[in-house]
Amino acid sequence: MTVSPTPTRLAIDPDRLLRTLEELGTIGRQPSGAIRRLAFSAEDVEARARVRTWMEEAGLAVRVDPAGNMIGRLEGRRPGTGALATGSHIDTVPSGGLYDGALGVVAGIEVARTLSEAGMRLEHPLEVIVFADEENTMVGCKSMVGHAPERPEEYRTNVGEPIQTCLERIGGCWERRPTARRERGEIAGFLELHVEQGGVLEAVGKQIGVVEGVVGQQRYSLAVEGQANHAGTTPMEMRRDALATAAQLILAVQDMALHFPGDPVATVGRLQVWPNAANIVPGRVEMTLDMRDLSHDVIDHMRAHLQRKIENIAVATRTRISLDPVFVVDPTPASAAIQEVIVDSCRSLGLSFTHLPSRASHDAQEIGRLTAMGMIFVPSQGGVSHSEQEYTSPEQCAQGVQVLLESLVRLDRQLD
Amino acid sequence: MTVSPTPTRLAIDPDRLLRTLEELGTIGRQPSGAIRRLAFSAEDVEARARVRTWMEEAGLAVRVDPAGNMIGRLEGRRPGTGALATGSHIDTVPSGGLYDGALGVVAGIEVARTLSEAGMRLEHPLEVIVFADEENTMVGCKSMVGHAPERPEEYRTNVGEPIQTCLERIGGCWERRPTARRERGEIAGFLELHVEQGGVLEAVGKQIGVVEGVVGQQRYSLAVEGQANHAGTTPMEMRRDALATAAQLILAVQDMALHFPGDPVATVGRLQVWPNAANIVPGRVEMTLDMRDLSHDVIDHMRAHLQRKIENIAVATRTRISLDPVFVVDPTPASAAIQEVIVDSCRSLGLSFTHLPSRASHDAQEIGRLTAMGMIFVPSQGGVSHSEQEYTSPEQCAQGVQVLLESLVRLDRQLD
Repeated sequence: MTVSPTPTRLAIDPDRLLRTLEELGTIGRQPSGAIRRLAFSAEDVEARARVRTWMEEAGLAVRVDPAGNMIGRLEGRRPGTGALATGSHIDTVPSGGLYDGALGVVAGIEVARTLSEAGMRLEHPLEVIVFADEENTMVGCKSMVGHAPERPEEYRTNVGEPIQTCLERIGGCWERRPTARRERGEIAGFLELHVEQGGVLEAVGKQIGVVEGVVGQQRYSLAVEGQANHAGTTPMEMRRDALATAAQLILAVQDMALHFPGDPVATVGRLQVWPNAANIVPGRVEMTLDMRDLSHDVIDHMRAHLQRKIENIAVATRTRISLDPVFVVDPTPASAAIQEVIVDSCRSLGLSFTHLPSRASHDAQEIGRLTAMGMIFVPSQGGVSHSEQEYTSPEQCAQGVQVLLESLVRLDRQLD
Repeated sequence: MTVSPTPTRLAIDPDRLLRTLEELGTIGRQPSGAIRRLAFSAEDVEARARVRTWMEEAGLAVRVDPAGNMIGRLEGRRPGTGALATGSHIDTVPSGGLYDGALGVVAGIEVARTLSEAGMRLEHPLEVIVFADEENTMVGCKSMVGHAPERPEEYRTNVGEPIQTCLERIGGCWERRPTARRERGEIAGFLELHVEQGGVLEAVGKQIGVVEGVVGQQRYSLAVEGQANHAGTTPMEMRRDALATAAQLILAVQDMALHFPGDPVATVGRLQVWPNAANIVPGRVEMTLDMRDLSHDVIDHMRAHLQRKIENIAVATRTRISLDPVFVVDPTPASAAIQEVIVDSCRSLGLSFTHLPSRASHDAQEIGRLTAMGMIFVPSQGGVSHSEQEYTSPEQCAQGVQVLLESLVRLDRQLD
């Protein structure tokens, strides 16, 4: 397999890239084929040691910050400038695949290897970062931005141990965690390569996704209070059926997201009925509402629209409906300049591309609150992720890494 | 309190009626005020003994048939005729009220007392029946009709003991249970007084309900198979959301029952979602569908209508929807002649009335498969039943019993 070189004639080594990715995938591999490498687990510790070795072999100076982020750094030619950073995570969901997170880390290492082999240095320092616990607490990226919770009780780790113990295990330190925060200017720009985890690129037949930003999210709890009653003796006209009202709400949510400008998503994913018996008219329903969009305004408008709908539906169905916020995550737009650089890179490499939002969370969503951020997506077969069936072809992986290298080189020239 | 006498100048004693009802209500009374008198429990046994005493004092000859039905009989003047029967049940739901079932039994005793006191005998024998376990297995009324399950494993009693032990405890006998079946002609007609357990009489402001029949019921299991997916990365247009599809079905069911000719009811009472997580598009939903109407045809037409709806919805939402039968109970129409007799009785007593279906199950629904059946309803305050808040005023109770007496006397004259 070959990939087109950058304008500076630098080409990554696709075979080496894949070997590295697959070697990382042996750590935590289950009999099912799924990868279980929970943050702070023995597998995570082993994988981090392996990554450290690769980083050092690629010429990076490696340190672990107090929030558990592993940072490999190659100094630049121009002193005193902010770093160009890339990276992702190597922790997985309980039953994950080969690519989610890992590809972005291995990509950063491959970029460093390619630069080192060519004896080439960027003007800016290059940082390749393994963020701690992306799949759960996001303690790594959030601490780097100064947005992580301050009380240890607020962290519920997947391995079930206190965050203090967990950080210590990977070379971090709870007490010094606040010092993991980076100053504005320390990082001049951040680029993350990741698998799409959705089916858009495949559906539109494009090779590269130029991410417009990571969507924001608002989570709500919706409750409908009607009147439980005998399903035989209560005439239809006299019912205050909480489930029938909930059904109207579910369809209103779906209709709203389908017809709102842009491509927001809104989901009722969890629903519970009381008393939940075949012969009783439902008296109470509780459900979740999850809304995501690139624009904070769009989500706010959707909430306002829904609030009016709720009032009408409640009156019409003689029920009480409450909408209570659970949490809010602000959207993170990608830097327009970095999006342009990615587009230019795709064009110079002859790769097709499309712009799209990232609707899943990523470390870039936090780092983008500190500095200019961009993300490069490669296709996920069937849109599948968080599963052993996650798949991106070797060629697609290599194309993504080549775009990453090309974009970093171009950014290095453009940025102060 | 006074009630109008029958054309034969017979008037029941409202105070004695109420005293008897309240005395029965002391058996199984809980601190909450609810009555717990589960069939075959010690409370049921105690209550049956009390009822037997009252029956004997009223001049009835009492026997318990092998299915546990207690039958008090007052022979008629004309030999060889079928009996005029009345009655109901004295077992309750786990947390029941004073009136459900008990009123119909105490009413029969009061009718017998009134006749005996007046030294009056009907042409037909009078039977006052306490049916066994109306609230659960209906072993009493079903055995009398020959419709009860034949294998003991098919009975799951509320006291958690085998049906054989249970029947023995109340004077029945599992082995001889088939002989509890009555022949056509043995019972010339059956009349049951019961509280409405719904809010129709109260809503329309009528004193007596002339029951048109006990509705039939079809229970189905509805399942929707969509595709579970990431609630962030799956665009609205690409979703196969099982819950949104279920919402369409729930509203189609409601709409159908509201607009179908007659007053059918249809209920989705139980619903379960998989995987039921806030951040996952629902992949599967299972729910119950319960449809009831006086007419078998109406229920069948509703099912056919829904089947077509289901096909359209499945295509439109790219889901698979299955509708599987769970059970069918045929409707039992009330005898037109007995309804007329009840109407005539109401008119002669100056009581307002309306015709309505019974949408709850009753012993009469089974006995109506053997002989001409009628039911008299009195109002339930707020439509509440199966609760300690169940309430029918002393005056309303007395009116119902007077209509029962009047109707039995009139039937006695009309029937062969």
